[in-house]
Amino acid sequence: MNAISKGRLIGVGTGPGDPELLTLKAARALSEADVVAYFAKRGNNSNARAIVEARFKPGMVELPLLYPVTTEIDKDHDDYRSQIADFYEQSAESVAAHLDRGLTVAVLSEGDPLFYGSYMHLHVRLAHRFATEVIPGITAMSGCWSTTGLPIVQGDDVLSVLPGTMSEFELTRRLADTDAAVIMKVGRNLPKIRRALEATGKLAKAVYVERGTMAGGSSMRLAEKTDDKAPYFAIVLVAGWSGKPGATS
Amino acid sequence: MNAISKGRLIGVGTGPGDPELLTLKAARALSEADVVAYFAKRGNNSNARAIVEARFKPGMVELPLLYPVTTEIDKDHDDYRSQIADFYEQSAESVAAHLDRGLTVAVLSEGDPLFYGSYMHLHVRLAHRFATEVIPGITAMSGCWSTTGLPIVQGDDVLSVLPGTMSEFELTRRLADTDAAVIMKVGRNLPKIRRALEATGKLAKAVYVERGTMAGGSSMRLAEKTDDKAPYFAIVLVAGWSGKPGATS
Repeated sequence: MNAISKGRLIGVGTGPGDPELLTLKAARALSEADVVAYFAKRGNNSNARAIVEARFKPGMVELPLLYPVTTEIDKDHDDYRSQIADFYEQSAESVAAHLDRGLTVAVLSEGDPLFYGSYMHLHVRLAHRFATEVIPGITAMSGCWSTTGLPIVQGDDVLSVLPGTMSEFELTRRLADTDAAVIMKVGRNLPKIRRALEATGKLAKAVYVERGTMAGGSSMRLAEKTDDKAPYFAIVLVAGWSGKPGATS
Repeated sequence: MNAISKGRLIGVGTGPGDPELLTLKAARALSEADVVAYFAKRGNNSNARAIVEARFKPGMVELPLLYPVTTEIDKDHDDYRSQIADFYEQSAESVAAHLDRGLTVAVLSEGDPLFYGSYMHLHVRLAHRFATEVIPGITAMSGCWSTTGLPIVQGDDVLSVLPGTMSEFELTRRLADTDAAVIMKVGRNLPKIRRALEATGKLAKAVYVERGTMAGGSSMRLAEKTDDKAPYFAIVLVAGWSGKPGATS
C-alpha cells in the first residue's frame, strides 16, 4: 500500500441544524469530498445529512452507516455492546475501503464531531492509518443558548454538561455544585430534571429548548412548561451569570 | 423613536482563530453590517477583528470599544468594578447611537458570543431595545479538541468547564468529580493545574493546547511539557472517553 495513494478522512461538524451554521471550512470539505458518510438509524433520515444535503455534488458517493440495533436491547447488555462494537469495526472498514482507493471521505456529524459525536468511533479506528482532519461544528448547546439569547457563562463561572439520564440524586448534587449547567438527553427524564432543579433553587432560571436552531425550534422558561413531554434531544439551560447590567464578574 | 427606523444588533461569533472556522451565517452578517464593533485592550489588536478583517467592506464603519483598565487594578476592587460597569454602559450607548440611526451593527466576539464573551455585556443592555440576533461561533475549547483530534466526551460523560483561576483544593475536588474536563485561563496557574491533575490521577491523559486553531498553534501531552510557561488563553483538555476501539459507552 502506497502512502501517496491513500485518501483523506475528514470529520465534518454540520452544526446544530440551521444550514447556515455550517463553517466555511466544512462547506469547502464537502465541495472536495468524493464520498460522504454518515451514521443513521435504519428507517430514519440522518439529521446531519439533511443539514448539508443541498451541498451534495452530482456524482458524489453516499455511504450511509446504518445502526444494526436501536432500543430493542438494553444498552448495558453484552449483546448490545458486542453488536455495536462489530458495527463500528465494519463501518470503519467500509470507510477505509474508499480511503485505500485514494478518495477523500467526509464523515458528517451533527453538531461537533468530537463532542458526543458518533464520528469518534471511526476516528479512533482510522486516524492513525490515514491523513485525518476534524472540522469542529457549532454544538447543539451553543445553538440553543444563542437562539434564546441566554448568556450562559461569564468570568470564572463553572459550566457542567450533564446527561439527563443520571440519577436524581446525582443530578441534584451536581446542579447544586455548579454555576451554569447544560442538561442533555432530556426526553422522559424531564420530571426528574425538574425536581432536581427545584431542589437546588434553580428551576426559576432554567430554560427549556426544543429543536434548537432547527426548523420549528422553540424555547420557554421550564417553570412555565405545563407538560412533561419532551423529545430526547431537548436541552435545559441554566445560566451561571446573573446577566444584570453592572455585574462584572 | 420609530421602531421601523431602528437598526439591527448582531452578536457575531468569529470562532477560535482559523478564519475558515467562521460560519456561513457570520460571513453573511459581516457582508450586511454597516458598523463592526469589537472590544479590545488599549494598545492591543483585537483577535476577533483579526480573524474576520479580510471580510471588511469598503465604507464599513469600525467601532473599537477600548477597555479603560486592564491589570493595573485588582479585579475584585470596587474601583475596577465601577470603572468597568461605566465602560460597558458607555459602550452600549455607542452601539445604540448607530442602531438608532437604523444601521446594522455586528459586534464581533472571538469564539462564541454568549460563552464567556464580552459581547454579553452589550446584549443584556441592548437586546430588549433593538432587534437582536446572536450567531454562535466555534468555541476555543472545541477548536482545541478538534485540532488535536481528541474525542472529549461520549455517551453519558459529564463535562466540566473549569477556570484555572480557582483554588487548588477546588480544582482537585472538581477534577476528581468529572469524566471530562476543559481547564481555561491556564497562564500562571499551570503548576497548580498540574498538581491537581496529578492528585486525581489524570495528568497522564491531560493534553495542553496553546493558540488552538490560530497560526502557530501547538499541543502536547501535559506530562511531557517540561516548563511551566503558558499563555493565559492556553487550554488543558482531559478526555472523558477512553477512546479505545470497542468502548461503546
